[in-house]
Amino acid sequence: MAESPIIQRLIEALKVLPGVGPKSARRMSYYLLERNREGAREIAASLIDAVDHIGHCCRCNNLSESELCDICASSRRDPSLLCVVETPTDLQSLEQAGVYSGMYFVLMGHLSPLDGIGPDELGMDRLEELLKSGDIQEVVLATNLTVEGEATAHFVGEMVRARGIRASRIAYGVPVGGELEYIDRNTLSRAFSGRQDM
Amino acid sequence: MAESPIIQRLIEALKVLPGVGPKSARRMSYYLLERNREGAREIAASLIDAVDHIGHCCRCNNLSESELCDICASSRRDPSLLCVVETPTDLQSLEQAGVYSGMYFVLMGHLSPLDGIGPDELGMDRLEELLKSGDIQEVVLATNLTVEGEATAHFVGEMVRARGIRASRIAYGVPVGGELEYIDRNTLSRAFSGRQDM
Repeated sequence: MAESPIIQRLIEALKVLPGVGPKSARRMSYYLLERNREGAREIAASLIDAVDHIGHCCRCNNLSESELCDICASSRRDPSLLCVVETPTDLQSLEQAGVYSGMYFVLMGHLSPLDGIGPDELGMDRLEELLKSGDIQEVVLATNLTVEGEATAHFVGEMVRARGIRASRIAYGVPVGGELEYIDRNTLSRAFSGRQDM
Repeated sequence: MAESPIIQRLIEALKVLPGVGPKSARRMSYYLLERNREGAREIAASLIDAVDHIGHCCRCNNLSESELCDICASSRRDPSLLCVVETPTDLQSLEQAGVYSGMYFVLMGHLSPLDGIGPDELGMDRLEELLKSGDIQEVVLATNLTVEGEATAHFVGEMVRARGIRASRIAYGVPVGGELEYIDRNTLSRAFSGRQDM
C-alpha cells in the first residue's frame, strides 16, 4: 500500500537538497511529521523569508538582503584588495577563518563551457567594471583548487593583469595537521615545488 | 563579517533535520538560494501541506491524511493478523517489501521509562481495544531488534497472550547477502540457535 500523496510530495521536494537521497528524504519527512511539526513550520517559514528577501549585492554579487552587502558597505575593509571566489559559501569560509580584510567578488560558479557557463554567466563584465574603478591594487584568486577552479583563476588572472593590476593565487600544499602518508601525490608535488625558506 | 540574519535563521531551521549538522545546513541553504529557489518554495509548500493535513489513523495510529488510513480501510487485508511496529517508516519498509498483508498497529516509539515513555504514551490502551474486538488471531511483533524494541515486544507479547491470542516475533539472523565474516557475535549466536531444518 503506497504512502499518502502528501507525504510523497514532501519526500520528492526534500530530495532536491544536496546530499539527500530518497532514504534520507523519507527519514526527514517522517521525523518532522512524527516528532517536530514546529520545526517543519519553521523550515517552511524561513525558506520563504530567505527566497523572498535574499538577493545579490550590486557590487560583489554575494547573497545579500540589502542592495549593497555589509562587506561592500563597510568602511573597515581594505578597498585595494579584491578576492575572487566561486560561491557565497567560499566567501563565508574565508570570513570565518578571519584571514582577509579586503573586498570580494563572487562569481556564483566557475567556467564550464560544456554546461554553457562562460564569462558572461559569471558576471565578468561587472568584475571588469570593478577593476576599471581604479581602487584595486591586487586581486587574490581564491577559486577552488580543482580543474575548473584553476581554469577560472587563469582566465580572471589574465583579465586582471591586462589592466596592469597584480593577480595572485592562494597556495597549494599540505593542509595544517595533514599527515604526508594520506596526502595524494599531486598535492605533495605542489607542496614541494611551492616550498618556502624558513 | 557575519551572514545575513535571514540566512542564519534558515540554517538554524534546517539543523533540526535528522543527520543535518551546521555544515550541511549551510550547504543546503546556499544551494537553495543560489541555484534552486523553486525547489525551496516547493519544500516550504509541501511541508505546510503535510503538517496541516497529515494526522493519525484512528485505528492503527499510522500517519494518514484521512481519519481511517488506506490500509485499515482496505477490504483486501487480512483482519486476523496484526503487526505491531515502532514507527510509520518501519510500516512503510514492510509494505515496500510486500511480505505482509494483515493489519498494523504503530506504537510511534518504544518503551523508554527513562524518557518518560510508558505504555500510555505508546497508545497501548488503543491496542488493547483492538485486541478486544475479537477479529485478531495472531499479533506479529515487528519492533526493532534493539534492547528497547525487545523490551517493547516482550511487554506487548505478554498483553497479547493474556487475551489468549498468539504472539510471534520476527526472526533474528544473518541478513540476506550477509557474509559471516562481518556479522557480529550476538547475531551469529541467534542465527545458530534459530537454525531451521532444510
